[in-house]
Amino acid sequence: MAVLPPLSDADASPEARAVFDQIRASRKTDFINNFWRVLAHDPPQLKATWERLSGVMGPGSLDPLVKELIYIAVSTANGCSYCIHSHTAAARAKGMSEAQHAELIAVIGMAAQTNAMVTALQVPVDQVFQAELP
Amino acid sequence: MAVLPPLSDADASPEARAVFDQIRASRKTDFINNFWRVLAHDPPQLKATWERLSGVMGPGSLDPLVKELIYIAVSTANGCSYCIHSHTAAARAKGMSEAQHAELIAVIGMAAQTNAMVTALQVPVDQVFQAELP
Amino acid sequence: MAVLPPLSDADASPEARAVFDQIRASRKTDFINNFWRVLAHDPPQLKATWERLSGVMGPGSLDPLVKELIYIAVSTANGCSYCIHSHTAAARAKGMSEAQHAELIAVIGMAAQTNAMVTALQVPVDQVFQAELP
Amino acid sequence: MAVLPPLSDADASPEARAVFDQIRASRKTDFINNFWRVLAHDPPQLKATWERLSGVMGPGSLDPLVKELIYIAVSTANGCSYCIHSHTAAARAKGMSEAQHAELIAVIGMAAQTNAMVTALQVPVDQVFQAELP
Amino acid sequence: MAVLPPLSDADASPEARAVFDQIRASRKTDFINNFWRVLAHDPPQLKATWERLSGVMGPGSLDPLVKELIYIAVSTANGCSYCIHSHTAAARAKGMSEAQHAELIAVIGMAAQTNAMVTALQVPVDQVFQAELP
Amino acid sequence: MAVLPPLSDADASPEARAVFDQIRASRKTDFINNFWRVLAHDPPQLKATWERLSGVMGPGSLDPLVKELIYIAVSTANGCSYCIHSHTAAARAKGMSEAQHAELIAVIGMAAQTNAMVTALQVPVDQVFQAELP
Repeated sequence: MAVLPPLSDADASPEARAVFDQIRASRKTDFINNFWRVLAHDPPQLKATWERLSGVMGPGSLDPLVKELIYIAVSTANGCSYCIHSHTAAARAKGMSEAQHAELIAVIGMAAQTNAMVTALQVPVDQVFQAELP
Repeated sequence: MAVLPPLSDADASPEARAVFDQIRASRKTDFINNFWRVLAHDPPQLKATWERLSGVMGPGSLDPLVKELIYIAVSTANGCSYCIHSHTAAARAKGMSEAQHAELIAVIGMAAQTNAMVTALQVPVDQVFQAELP
Repeated sequence: MAVLPPLSDADASPEARAVFDQIRASRKTDFINNFWRVLAHDPPQLKATWERLSGVMGPGSLDPLVKELIYIAVSTANGCSYCIHSHTAAARAKGMSEAQHAELIAVIGMAAQTNAMVTALQVPVDQVFQAELP
Repeated sequence: MAVLPPLSDADASPEARAVFDQIRASRKTDFINNFWRVLAHDPPQLKATWERLSGVMGPGSLDPLVKELIYIAVSTANGCSYCIHSHTAAARAKGMSEAQHAELIAVIGMAAQTNAMVTALQVPVDQVFQAELP
Repeated sequence: MAVLPPLSDADASPEARAVFDQIRASRKTDFINNFWRVLAHDPPQLKATWERLSGVMGPGSLDPLVKELIYIAVSTANGCSYCIHSHTAAARAKGMSEAQHAELIAVIGMAAQTNAMVTALQVPVDQVFQAELP
Repeated sequence: MAVLPPLSDADASPEARAVFDQIRASRKTDFINNFWRVLAHDPPQLKATWERLSGVMGPGSLDPLVKELIYIAVSTANGCSYCIHSHTAAARAKGMSEAQHAELIAVIGMAAQTNAMVTALQVPVDQVFQAELP
């Protein structure tokens, strides 16, 4: 399925190809996945998204693998099939073990279950969990 | 807001109070938050949920703090205000720094943004991301 | 919270008040809840929504109480706090017992959990579950 | 995928075929898309849905193209792949340019990102944004 | 699509095959659907999920068919294609008629519509719908 | 509710206050709403978010008011109460009439309803709606 075709290197504009080159250099692979090839229809959006994503997902206070797990969790709750596939692959590339994957699934499932129970019961937020407002 | 009131210790059944005692012993605090007090209307559900949750969220291949971050991510995507409040408190209790919290927010926001872009564009899943089916 | 105030009978237009009267007659109560009082800013929308809702939620192949349970389930997954409150009240008025409410919460929680696990794992749909396409 | 097959003209009931004829006349095309062909299993629902949809999406205070953009935005947030495909096609038929499509994607992505950040941070609603309640 | 392949009986561990046997005995069929075959990568999760699911979905205060309708409703709002397919099949196996299916779709659609309208209008919850808090 | 308090001008860092000044200059008002005051705990995130948001929401191929309507639509489907309040206020400030607001609500409700019906029925995407893949 698609509403816009992924662009091959030949069909992409020079500005988009320049971003492809950055992605290739950063990831040390020739492969460019479809997200970037579809975004290439809008080169400034492609460039801005790549720059933010590589900044946000890089090393910081949280480990890059932990960030991938969070990404999978959000993508699951949002039902983004593409994102689940691509970030599960990314997590594996960053060292996610089968046992970690299984625990991730368990935590996501547990959170979804209690989210639904809390929402169906409309549980009031405890005072102690709330920041004091000025 | 609530569709069922949280039950005080005095109003909870002996079976529910026994779970409250387990929670207190496990968490080393007297405080019982409203989720458990509302679930106390259905003591078997209370007991089963506590047992699964403490199992899933305990130590394993993933660090307990990492599990809390994943929980916050799912709860955010599901819009569960109570869950975001309670698990942000839990993450802080397990050592989440302000810088880690800020990165968590950034990753959640980035994931939500690209989830939406991918979905709006209906990007086709790359073959390389898919498990081979039998 | 509100982006438009609920309209009192005095502030509503004659067209909106006529719908209020239909609701009162149908429900055999003088009380008009805020959903209808906010919709009263757009009387044709108020009228159309009331007519469809009372048609869809009335007796048919499914029991009206069962329809309320389905409504609560959808409202929970969509995170609509108002809708959960109002349809839980409606389900109780139609005879939902505490035990049925507890089972409803359990089913909603179980479904949310397996939905999330299935989505995180991207389980392929079995051939036998799919309708044959022409 | 499907849980009910789309009905061909030959398989549809006379009541459903009459709605197909209305759709064809209104859209000035012979083509009937699968949404209507699946709904044809329930002719009264087919008829009611078509009548409401054509009313809501027709000219009014908002331009029909603007309505299509709003439809795509909602369908994206709800993850409805079919709806994104069909309403992107409808928007193009109503004149959506490539540049407008690109801006739509950017706004949807930005909204999803800030929605998630606001929710993760549980930002309190400013008093000035709230309607005064009676 | 898949991020982990479904396991055949030959590839599953003895612990997973034991759960397959329980499913077969309980459902009186040899067929094991993909959800269980993918979960078989994590046998304790497979076992726990099957035990909870068969407990929750079994007879109680709510009819098993009603529970399937609730499951379909939640799965629809969460956009879980696999779950909609499998639980629609389950509901049919438990006696759901075409007329009941059509009413289910109508209630789900109506709930989704009013959920969205209520949310867009931020309708304040009526006092009478709220449980009294201690 | 809040997990982090909004920062007053006095409590914000110089870097954050500089962004507040940009917002004030751009919007020609002294008022800074809570989203920015909470983001001020992470000044680089505050700065980056303001710059992207003001870029995306400014004039382009789509009218700024149309962009606000799209923002409200996404925020509604994501259940972001804060965002609905703030962007409804923004839309009014950019000239949204009561009639346009009423139509927006109607389109959002219609989209949510058909999204749910399509998803519950798992309608297959028509070939004609799909981009040709390379």
